[in-house]
Amino acid sequence: MKFNIRRSEFISALNNAQRAISSKTAIDVLTGIKLTLSATKLTMTGSDADISIETVITEDNEKAALVIDEPGSVILPARFFNEIVKKLPEEMMTISVDARFQATITSGQAEFTINGLDSETYPHLPEIEADTKLVIAADILKQVINQTVIAVSTQESRPILTGIHLSYSNGELLAVATDSHRLSQRKITLADAGSEVYNIIVPGKSLNEMAKMLGDSTDNVEIRVAENQILFTFANISFYSRLLEGNYPDTDRLIPQSSETTVEFNAVELLHSIERASLLSHEGRNNVVKLSLQVADQKVVLNGNSPEIGNVEEDLSFKNLTGKDLEISFNPDYMKDALSSFGQTDITMSLTLPLRPFTLVPTEDGENFVQLITPVRTF
Amino acid sequence: MKFNIRRSEFISALNNAQRAISSKTAIDVLTGIKLTLSATKLTMTGSDADISIETVITEDNEKAALVIDEPGSVILPARFFNEIVKKLPEEMMTISVDARFQATITSGQAEFTINGLDSETYPHLPEIEADTKLVIAADILKQVINQTVIAVSTQESRPILTGIHLSYSNGELLAVATDSHRLSQRKITLADAGSEVYNIIVPGKSLNEMAKMLGDSTDNVEIRVAENQILFTFANISFYSRLLEGNYPDTDRLIPQSSETTVEFNAVELLHSIERASLLSHEGRNNVVKLSLQVADQKVVLNGNSPEIGNVEEDLSFKNLTGKDLEISFNPDYMKDALSSFGQTDITMSLTLPLRPFTLVPTEDGENFVQLITPVRTF
Repeated sequence: MKFNIRRSEFISALNNAQRAISSKTAIDVLTGIKLTLSATKLTMTGSDADISIETVITEDNEKAALVIDEPGSVILPARFFNEIVKKLPEEMMTISVDARFQATITSGQAEFTINGLDSETYPHLPEIEADTKLVIAADILKQVINQTVIAVSTQESRPILTGIHLSYSNGELLAVATDSHRLSQRKITLADAGSEVYNIIVPGKSLNEMAKMLGDSTDNVEIRVAENQILFTFANISFYSRLLEGNYPDTDRLIPQSSETTVEFNAVELLHSIERASLLSHEGRNNVVKLSLQVADQKVVLNGNSPEIGNVEEDLSFKNLTGKDLEISFNPDYMKDALSSFGQTDITMSLTLPLRPFTLVPTEDGENFVQLITPVRTF
Repeated sequence: MKFNIRRSEFISALNNAQRAISSKTAIDVLTGIKLTLSATKLTMTGSDADISIETVITEDNEKAALVIDEPGSVILPARFFNEIVKKLPEEMMTISVDARFQATITSGQAEFTINGLDSETYPHLPEIEADTKLVIAADILKQVINQTVIAVSTQESRPILTGIHLSYSNGELLAVATDSHRLSQRKITLADAGSEVYNIIVPGKSLNEMAKMLGDSTDNVEIRVAENQILFTFANISFYSRLLEGNYPDTDRLIPQSSETTVEFNAVELLHSIERASLLSHEGRNNVVKLSLQVADQKVVLNGNSPEIGNVEEDLSFKNLTGKDLEISFNPDYMKDALSSFGQTDITMSLTLPLRPFTLVPTEDGENFVQLITPVRTF
């Protein structure tokens, strides 16, 4: 195996493949990165068994200036290999691997020799031969993931809740996550509606990692689903994740269909007020803040307090407060996550009773995006 | 106590005073920041017993727009107070403290109430009444500290070596640090030479912290020394540090006066080569790299290796290699620190024997700046 390549392009593809590699893996070979050189392209693969990422540089990529001398493959220690390549002195570099899997990396006057492994020892990537695919613009997919992944459970006690539930039929994609204290739900309509029906649960960790790799472009991401795997393809990247097995709880019935009190806020202003209130609640035993909705007085007051440090009280700005007076207490961190997911927009908060879940939706489009939070009992 | 002030200016002075505050202090009151409001100025004080920092905002500072309603003083929990002030909604804020040391912080609609302490419980700052002072430009002082502090010992076994030895006489300031494996020495001449003589040892940690606060301006820093304290005054900041007690070792005799081999490098190029070699040496048992100076062949080769990972070899660029052939091994981290302290410049390396210390000096000015490193025995 021998090739010559421009370092900057190589590093970018290497970094992407390496995102799948965990330093904590128990499987020794997965601390390595697999390089496979065919007659026309270089493929790099990283994996932590749950997620696998494959990046490809083809010979016709002019920026990479890949020159293939001799096809072959090898596994190299990922962390070192990356550090070495980053620190090489020149723009171009040459990698050659001998029959004993010893790699020689040369750039300018620097010559590194590192010990590699036979690529035959690397696990095979899942094979996803699905003919059908969903197509979504990268920026939309990224938004859907970021808006729902906040409600994914981080506890392993109910593994199914560590995933995002994706269901697709009739051109409509529904993403739901809940950790049983809060819920995020986002709906989008896809342009090329096929007849497929999907009902899968993807680990939140996988989707989070993938969202970080998605740009804010409108380039298409292709999604293919096999029995226990999902494959996202975009740019020169193939991102594989295993699926979670089991039945996702029926979340439809959790979202209240009516309300006793409603009020509108600017999401960013409310976020800042919650951040102030949480400074003190974080020190208290319960980490809760209290919101008082006083309809007759047309007043909304937010309170945070810590017996040791002190307390904070703030009169909030709002619009259209109607219904019954209400006082609720909730975890401000859930509220911060929810509010951050809306961006700079007006939201409508709908409440029923002090201990019943309340919802936040964009005032302009309450149908396609809901954040739900369960209050906390403080008495 | 009550005042109104522009938040941005207040935060900057607060952050500076807070640099002295350690979250790990055993003295409870030192987790607080002391605010003292006189008829004309606000003073904030932070301390960890070793270092104390005092910042002042006067009434005539237009940017701060300080309006003093009622003088007084209080100690507030530093971390919270800082977080609260940073998150307040408006440009201006008001702080008032009642007779029970409860502080109310108001800005816009947000009102925080936090529990403070009687400022009488705060330790007194050292009093330094020295009439005589040294005056140094901030950028020069920062450079002298950064160039020498790298060689300060981090081991408490010989506490005196955790300091930088500063000696001053006849207008010449000499700064020396050594951890017994390496040594940094920098000499500067001060413009206003007074007749004082100083011979003190300042904790490296204090000087490091102070250097971070010094800008790259040529504004003057005033230095005053008392029996066991040093005071640096610049901008609106007074920085106090205790001195280390004891005798600093005689370091003059450690610097070799002659050499058998000399060679010149560009400091930055050599630094990059050392960084590459250390990638592998860091994994080895000894963390050493090997430099071979081959005078007859006019060749300089750097080697790093790790039995597990592999090795690196590089032909270095150099100038004026003269004297005897030599092969030395050294800790690349010491070399990286030393080379970084030179910046983009040519340096001369002077060596005697494989196990005797070698020196690096700027080729253009070998008198005022020396980095010395002791090689490592590898056989």
